[in-house]
Amino acid sequence: MQKIYVITAGGTIEKVYSEQTGNVQNLDSKIDRYFQMLRLPDAEIAVTHLMNKDSLEMTDADRTRVLAMVREKLADPAPVVITHGTDTMVETGLLLQSNLSELRYPIILTGAMTPLGFEGSDGLQNLTESLLAARVLPAGVYVVMHNQVFPVDRVRKDRELARFVWK
Amino acid sequence: MQKIYVITAGGTIEKVYSEQTGNVQNLDSKIDRYFQMLRLPDAEIAVTHLMNKDSLEMTDADRTRVLAMVREKLADPAPVVITHGTDTMVETGLLLQSNLSELRYPIILTGAMTPLGFEGSDGLQNLTESLLAARVLPAGVYVVMHNQVFPVDRVRKDRELARFVWK
Amino acid sequence: MQKIYVITAGGTIEKVYSEQTGNVQNLDSKIDRYFQMLRLPDAEIAVTHLMNKDSLEMTDADRTRVLAMVREKLADPAPVVITHGTDTMVETGLLLQSNLSELRYPIILTGAMTPLGFEGSDGLQNLTESLLAARVLPAGVYVVMHNQVFPVDRVRKDRELARFVWK
Amino acid sequence: MQKIYVITAGGTIEKVYSEQTGNVQNLDSKIDRYFQMLRLPDAEIAVTHLMNKDSLEMTDADRTRVLAMVREKLADPAPVVITHGTDTMVETGLLLQSNLSELRYPIILTGAMTPLGFEGSDGLQNLTESLLAARVLPAGVYVVMHNQVFPVDRVRKDRELARFVWK
Repeated sequence: MQKIYVITAGGTIEKVYSEQTGNVQNLDSKIDRYFQMLRLPDAEIAVTHLMNKDSLEMTDADRTRVLAMVREKLADPAPVVITHGTDTMVETGLLLQSNLSELRYPIILTGAMTPLGFEGSDGLQNLTESLLAARVLPAGVYVVMHNQVFPVDRVRKDRELARFVWK
Repeated sequence: MQKIYVITAGGTIEKVYSEQTGNVQNLDSKIDRYFQMLRLPDAEIAVTHLMNKDSLEMTDADRTRVLAMVREKLADPAPVVITHGTDTMVETGLLLQSNLSELRYPIILTGAMTPLGFEGSDGLQNLTESLLAARVLPAGVYVVMHNQVFPVDRVRKDRELARFVWK
Repeated sequence: MQKIYVITAGGTIEKVYSEQTGNVQNLDSKIDRYFQMLRLPDAEIAVTHLMNKDSLEMTDADRTRVLAMVREKLADPAPVVITHGTDTMVETGLLLQSNLSELRYPIILTGAMTPLGFEGSDGLQNLTESLLAARVLPAGVYVVMHNQVFPVDRVRKDRELARFVWK
Repeated sequence: MQKIYVITAGGTIEKVYSEQTGNVQNLDSKIDRYFQMLRLPDAEIAVTHLMNKDSLEMTDADRTRVLAMVREKLADPAPVVITHGTDTMVETGLLLQSNLSELRYPIILTGAMTPLGFEGSDGLQNLTESLLAARVLPAGVYVVMHNQVFPVDRVRKDRELARFVWK
């Protein structure tokens, strides 16, 4: 049984539609419901709901909290998947990369362009890919989405294309 | 084969999630895709995309266009289903009721609290119900949603409950 | 609040895929899960799981049990929806029609050509239509599927077309 | 742009429900529809529909055809994903492993316990995982399903558990 830490930080992947406001918002975490759609007979998924923010609203203090939580988890080493808004995912990843040394497992940042459960969502694809990547990638910090694996220092978001590209 | 007119006016039922803005908006009509999920072997669905507006932004002129389009269709009489934002659906329905006389078929207004294709959406349920109601209700103007049938002069939206109730 | 009785008798609508045998079978009732996908704020759905049979295997005794259950429910009169295999749905419906008199509400038989939850399934459409029909049809025994309403003595299944047609 | 060959051999993943027979069968390939649900902006998926068989009915000649097709593709080397029935997936994989030398990319066998598009299906998960694995695994022959990666000579199907396990 492979333990995989999942830390949720919010972002589009977790947004829900509010019937009262008619907007999509980061309200309740819904990622657990989607994990239940996957078959993970050999994985122990340990989810920590850290925050639920649009990543454009994440502050330096928020990013430091992500780093602290990863450090806490790595006391008992295992792969880490972080769900995160795409707009500042790379920024958080670079902070992790520059502050964590001697990693023994991969740390994977993922998210979505369209929220989980909305037609055309890429959320479940990205979660599925990230959990597989968590098992097979070498130690390092990565962005995994859309069938692509990027080391975090080689990637940038292309807003127009609505995806990540090499930099 | 029963002809059923469908006139789309926008509203939440047709909203789409925009990856560029991160909001839900009335952009492209998507109702035709959802009709294709239904089996309608004895129905000829004639769809007219009239407008695609949040119903809070509909003007008197917009409502007059809806009325004119219904009149145009009724030259060749058949049931009419109008998809419409819920916030002013009753207002449009009352305009139809007071301006159309000697109806031979029902006119049904429907919509959704959550857009078609979003998790938990009531859109396909309401469409399905409205197409069935179009065949079996007597002549008149109705709101049909959530397994309820309301004559348009007996209904109001309850924003807090996110549904229609008797008035 | 409108009470609606639902009596489940099995049929394709309730079939599940068995990973052990690789076949679809009538094993566990799953209709309740699908009711939860519908918004029914003004309906009290009272479900009775009577049997779970492929309707080609239903015997005269089984049909008599359906009749007895409907009679039992009608002691406290309300509309009745019966989910049933399509192959002998009409046979059961005719039995009900000839044995029940002075009906005050409609009795609706429905089912599916493809099981609930399988791609392209008509099951949820037919359930949705039947629950709406239960509210608005006059007293009588009907088959409701695919946006059509048939009095039970006017309908037959067309196996080649995979649907019901007028007789 | 990464080319990935996909060779379809049938199996549960491609089974469809037949309304005429009431059984699930290998009739038409449906995998292309499911690829369209995935975002693969940097992958060129080259699909070859080789056969569509329940893997219990695959003969030695069938397995030789799979091997020949893989050889043909590897003339222009790229990763290969083979969708295949689970019952004899390992047998086909072992044939590939013993007959292909000097692989430069991974060859991945995958399938499903429940057909694509049926409620609870693992098919899209397994496809998603396999396409990611195709990019990141070292050369070799693997079974990839359910968030697990097995070298083909280390795996067996456990019918009771309805999944693959280490041997």
